[in-house]
Amino acid sequence: MPQDVLRDKEFLRGLLLRAAEASGSTVVGDYFYKFENDMGVTGVVVVAESHLSIHTWPEYGYAAVDVFTCGTHTDPWRALEVLREELRPERVEVTEMTRGILEQLSLAE
Amino acid sequence: MPQDVLRDKEFLRGLLLRAAEASGSTVVGDYFYKFENDMGVTGVVVVAESHLSIHTWPEYGYAAVDVFTCGTHTDPWRALEVLREELRPERVEVTEMTRGILEQLSLAE
Repeated sequence: MPQDVLRDKEFLRGLLLRAAEASGSTVVGDYFYKFENDMGVTGVVVVAESHLSIHTWPEYGYAAVDVFTCGTHTDPWRALEVLREELRPERVEVTEMTRGILEQLSLAE
Repeated sequence: MPQDVLRDKEFLRGLLLRAAEASGSTVVGDYFYKFENDMGVTGVVVVAESHLSIHTWPEYGYAAVDVFTCGTHTDPWRALEVLREELRPERVEVTEMTRGILEQLSLAE
């Protein structure tokens, strides 16, 4: 991905907020940090359903993103679509992890 | 884990900061949020090497923690030790994920 984009804290903050909204999550706060010497950006959007995070390595054209949601009303794949559309990466690797005490959580739903 | 601990925002913030320090990470900021009606706490510590996060479900005695580090000078397992010592969970499940463009990153080290 273009190095400029991966160094642009305000763009990446807006992007992650749009991705959170697309997934159906409710944003409660965020924290973004730009490293010195244009070394990249790291940021987290805290949502009622957990969090989204991004860490960029402009020098490698690489970003690592987590989309962590909970409940049945959210769809993390919608967040991924927003990220794909706006970052237009050449290559994407996705790992889906199901976590939690699922037998108890399913009883509660 | 005890429900009181999983609802205690200031304790959990201090815990995650201690865990970050133990792992050798450099803290750059944090954001913690306590849900209404004692429904739990969610929080993130942003470190120069990525992030640590915690999301608690006191009603299930459950917490989901991510420890995301990068570089060779940090040890995420040290963070886990701090969390174990202070939370004393009956049961722990850990999944280790290696990520990034490893062939390029290893060239750079």
